[in-house]
Amino acid sequence: MADIPSRLEIGVTTGPIRGSRKVHVGPLKVAMREIDLEPSSGEPPVRVYDTSGPYTDPAAVIDIAAGLPALRREWQLARGDVEEYAPREVRPEDNGQLGPDRSGGVPPFPTALRRPLRAQPGGNISQMHYARQGIITPEMEYVAERENLGRAQIREHIRDGQDWGAAIPDYVTPEFVRDEVARGRAIIPSNVNHPEAEPMAIGRNFLVKINANIGNSAVASDVASEVDKMVWSIRWGADTVMDLSTGRNIHDTREWIIRNSPVPIGTVPIYQALEKVGGIAEDLTWEIFRDTLIEQAEQGVDYFTIHAGVRLPYIPMTAKRVTGIVSRGGSIMAKWCLAHHKESFLYERFDEITEIMKAYDIAYSLGDGLRPGSIADANDEAQFAELYTLGELTKKAWAQDVQVMIEGPGHVPMHKIKANMDKQLEACGEAPFYTLGPLVTDIAPGYDHITSGIGAAMIGWFGTAMLCYVTPKEHLGLPDRDDVKVGVVTYKLAAHAADLAKGHPAAKVRDDALSKARFEFRWRDQFNLSLDPDTAEQYHDQTLPAEGAKTAHFCSMCGPKFCSMKITQEVRDFAARQHNNPPQPVPAKAGREGDQPQAGGGGPAAIAEAEAGMEQMSEKFRETGSELYLGAGGREHD
Amino acid sequence: MADIPSRLEIGVTTGPIRGSRKVHVGPLKVAMREIDLEPSSGEPPVRVYDTSGPYTDPAAVIDIAAGLPALRREWQLARGDVEEYAPREVRPEDNGQLGPDRSGGVPPFPTALRRPLRAQPGGNISQMHYARQGIITPEMEYVAERENLGRAQIREHIRDGQDWGAAIPDYVTPEFVRDEVARGRAIIPSNVNHPEAEPMAIGRNFLVKINANIGNSAVASDVASEVDKMVWSIRWGADTVMDLSTGRNIHDTREWIIRNSPVPIGTVPIYQALEKVGGIAEDLTWEIFRDTLIEQAEQGVDYFTIHAGVRLPYIPMTAKRVTGIVSRGGSIMAKWCLAHHKESFLYERFDEITEIMKAYDIAYSLGDGLRPGSIADANDEAQFAELYTLGELTKKAWAQDVQVMIEGPGHVPMHKIKANMDKQLEACGEAPFYTLGPLVTDIAPGYDHITSGIGAAMIGWFGTAMLCYVTPKEHLGLPDRDDVKVGVVTYKLAAHAADLAKGHPAAKVRDDALSKARFEFRWRDQFNLSLDPDTAEQYHDQTLPAEGAKTAHFCSMCGPKFCSMKITQEVRDFAARQHNNPPQPVPAKAGREGDQPQAGGGGPAAIAEAEAGMEQMSEKFRETGSELYLGAGGREHD
Repeated sequence: MADIPSRLEIGVTTGPIRGSRKVHVGPLKVAMREIDLEPSSGEPPVRVYDTSGPYTDPAAVIDIAAGLPALRREWQLARGDVEEYAPREVRPEDNGQLGPDRSGGVPPFPTALRRPLRAQPGGNISQMHYARQGIITPEMEYVAERENLGRAQIREHIRDGQDWGAAIPDYVTPEFVRDEVARGRAIIPSNVNHPEAEPMAIGRNFLVKINANIGNSAVASDVASEVDKMVWSIRWGADTVMDLSTGRNIHDTREWIIRNSPVPIGTVPIYQALEKVGGIAEDLTWEIFRDTLIEQAEQGVDYFTIHAGVRLPYIPMTAKRVTGIVSRGGSIMAKWCLAHHKESFLYERFDEITEIMKAYDIAYSLGDGLRPGSIADANDEAQFAELYTLGELTKKAWAQDVQVMIEGPGHVPMHKIKANMDKQLEACGEAPFYTLGPLVTDIAPGYDHITSGIGAAMIGWFGTAMLCYVTPKEHLGLPDRDDVKVGVVTYKLAAHAADLAKGHPAAKVRDDALSKARFEFRWRDQFNLSLDPDTAEQYHDQTLPAEGAKTAHFCSMCGPKFCSMKITQEVRDFAARQHNNPPQPVPAKAGREGDQPQAGGGGPAAIAEAEAGMEQMSEKFRETGSELYLGAGGREHD
Repeated sequence: MADIPSRLEIGVTTGPIRGSRKVHVGPLKVAMREIDLEPSSGEPPVRVYDTSGPYTDPAAVIDIAAGLPALRREWQLARGDVEEYAPREVRPEDNGQLGPDRSGGVPPFPTALRRPLRAQPGGNISQMHYARQGIITPEMEYVAERENLGRAQIREHIRDGQDWGAAIPDYVTPEFVRDEVARGRAIIPSNVNHPEAEPMAIGRNFLVKINANIGNSAVASDVASEVDKMVWSIRWGADTVMDLSTGRNIHDTREWIIRNSPVPIGTVPIYQALEKVGGIAEDLTWEIFRDTLIEQAEQGVDYFTIHAGVRLPYIPMTAKRVTGIVSRGGSIMAKWCLAHHKESFLYERFDEITEIMKAYDIAYSLGDGLRPGSIADANDEAQFAELYTLGELTKKAWAQDVQVMIEGPGHVPMHKIKANMDKQLEACGEAPFYTLGPLVTDIAPGYDHITSGIGAAMIGWFGTAMLCYVTPKEHLGLPDRDDVKVGVVTYKLAAHAADLAKGHPAAKVRDDALSKARFEFRWRDQFNLSLDPDTAEQYHDQTLPAEGAKTAHFCSMCGPKFCSMKITQEVRDFAARQHNNPPQPVPAKAGREGDQPQAGGGGPAAIAEAEAGMEQMSEKFRETGSELYLGAGGREHD
């Protein structure tokens, strides 16, 4: 990542993603990335979804002490249904001063005395409420523009995919977004006090999203490094970030993160509430929990994980499990219920919680506190009992026009994954599903980004709207910067594989552009079009370091005497002669089916270039040798 | 991998796999590994499939100049149907001396003048031939013992899986193996001249297998490092190894590899044939190809990839593809067919090739030379035209009792994977499918072990018998030692996930044992039961380096005040009181459903131990801090 300035110089990671240009599309200036291809390709730039915010925009001035611009504030005030008010006072316990260690301090975010917004008394400012009144908000328009990406470029688009009953449109209109939100099939997490966020949708009929988790450090004196965890995650594609901090400084750290985050932020409020009672689950009370919700609502948290489905009668159902209760929030509530022999206050006070949610437009992420923690416990009685309760709570939230998504497992073998999706759709009325993995085997600690990436791609295809990432350190330790990147990129590719299989229009454009670049030995284009251009180029250079190797029509497997591109051109000439139907020249448009006659590139010029390139590289080839493994240097096995 | 002696000391990687013991089971002394668990678990050792050969057996003496013992030689001679004869003479071109660089030399394997075996004139020594005569060979008995693993331990086993029409038995008998081989649903690659190999089966009703590819270095003076590529691959679980070497020294290098390989070795003979004609595809002749088959047959190659399905009429079907022909063997044959405007000699001479196969018991791996090289080209006309020709050739091979497997794609989006399996079963009469990935998206170069691992797990579940691995360097460069390990482990977990989903008896035993260890904080057991114990322990130590952290009932996420194990014990007591049905003590047997009441471990002693452990570790916890990410330290998201 030589092209990324060190955090130390400028606080957080900035600089454009290699090979990408920031563009701002439409009247709302929706931020996207465009990847320019080599002129020889004769192809237009490829436009890709961008979660990275201003941090990858060379034109933006980044000052984390000032925070990001309040993109949505005007829209909010224009609706005339909010009030400013004096916030709840910050207390020592908000920063975990009850914890064992009182040292270590995070400075409060400078913009002191910010006055939060909330709905006017008795009001409801949720996107779902507007949607159900037939109002198309700017947030919905922004989402529509953002989801469409390059779809407009693709005329005569041929749908190819299996969507398992989803309703993915060829083109996303603001009205479609409104309708999906009104039905509860999609959410736009958008706490009124997080105006810095760029609107995004989580729903089965939109692109599959991914979430990354971050947490505070033991000694969090370096605020920039806390903020950079979020910045680093969204650089590689995280659509939302959950702050799972515990211990000290969590209030102040959260403020720094939210003020600088262009993506929605989620939390698990019970974590902070537990801190406030010194980590003793049985000492939790509704009052302390409620106060924590208000505290985080005023800061601008966009969605809350609430484990309201962990009901007293379900707890004994986990007694015979191999791994009991593995959800931390679930364990906390189970412990509370057992200690008091009472029904969960989250379940009993659910409508009161919903009152708070609608006053700030916070979305529910109903937590699966009883999810399976092992293959052995997948799809058991406890898991599904809770799921149906989450469905019941979904209806209660919707009755007050509050947005909801549902959290899902966990550890599930492949043959039991689809049942999770089907039951969730049925139990929860098509509310968006937000799953962790699932991991399809338990035997590969150190590789659980992969065991879970397999399940994530599959359940994403089946209909999950957002995938919660897993890093290689899962079950073992704390992910470092590289682990977070690997986790995010792994989930990004799983989400994209799901989009492809569902038949999302335009999803295939990027695959086709990269494959054409690969076939035509446009190495730079291949790197730039990939999810992680830095790693792709680095791997290539380990074998053929020379700058020339990036431009020559040459790969390290086949050598100078042999080139599939040349052979394919011969094949095309042969086919043309044989069938007397020469490929029609087609105006280059990314991803057009009609494009494929040209797809492999070629033409006499390209061939001449190829031969020149190979001549030039054959010496290099002899130097670097012909060590041969599967697919080495761009070719495939055998 | 601190516990693995460096190659430099002793030539190749030896030493036991961490936490494993080599055991030899049954009258045929079938090599397996056993993993002992902590006494506190009260559980028996977990027995796992072992591909690593004598290299991981401390009792074995490794001398690569002598090669491995000829395990199968007695069995072969006892059948009385082979003859020794004077081998074909080695020629300069066998070692690629026609290549541009004449330097670099591999010493011939010392055991000079070995006289190869072959069937007596007109005879057939294939395992399929014996099977169809009703003969159960020692090879079949060995396979039965090997596949059963711990199945015998599991009484009252409850099947759980979806096998898509496979016929997986509860217990594998030698007769079952014979019947599967006779039907052509499984193969036992076993060239009579590779008696060092430990018999293994590739078939839909057996455990899913994986293949790793290796190749020679440009300057291959260090023979040990060439042999070690194979040794390193099988250490981590490769069931077969393909030698895809080109250029110089390939004959001698191959000899060294085969003499030291306990797993079947596959090759693509057209590669060496192409070397013999200086890399000019159109100069290939049947005579040169046939001579190469004999050369490799005498050395002991167990299966040949033969691209006999690349027929002249299919070649024009690739003209409109995005990525044309990406199979190297396919390109070579396409080029030959076009240059001569003739049908492929591989197709026309197929029965003559089969005559050679049956004289040595070499299995066909019918190559998919027209497989898709991109999402755009998946499941197209060219691909399936070739597949149905491979089916036709399968029947021709079976008519001579020669073993066959079928190679498959490639690049395929998730929704098009199952059709590949279904068509292959139908077209090829249930001959084993051997697939490369498939990759489910093209946009993640640098991560294609993952994009392909997703497709591999799915198609393995659907019925693929062997998965050809992909490394992180796929499409970019040449994998190093670490890349090979990551590729093998990734495919091992994908194959195991497929076994779980298919409902292989005993597959779940290892998952359950690891999950119980995880839940009971038996860190050592968790490491040892994982596919890569070295990496698992290394990742754990990065967060909690102290030796105590590996034994304490403690994890870095929850801290001293909070332990899911304690809560689960409370849950169990509560459940017991509530329902007045205390968990029955069950004799510990790995994986028994009846085991689960005990599964979470616990009991007053365990709890006391847990509390002691946490006391001891709470100080360490404060030191290392509570940085919190998803699932850190063994717990899950929220």
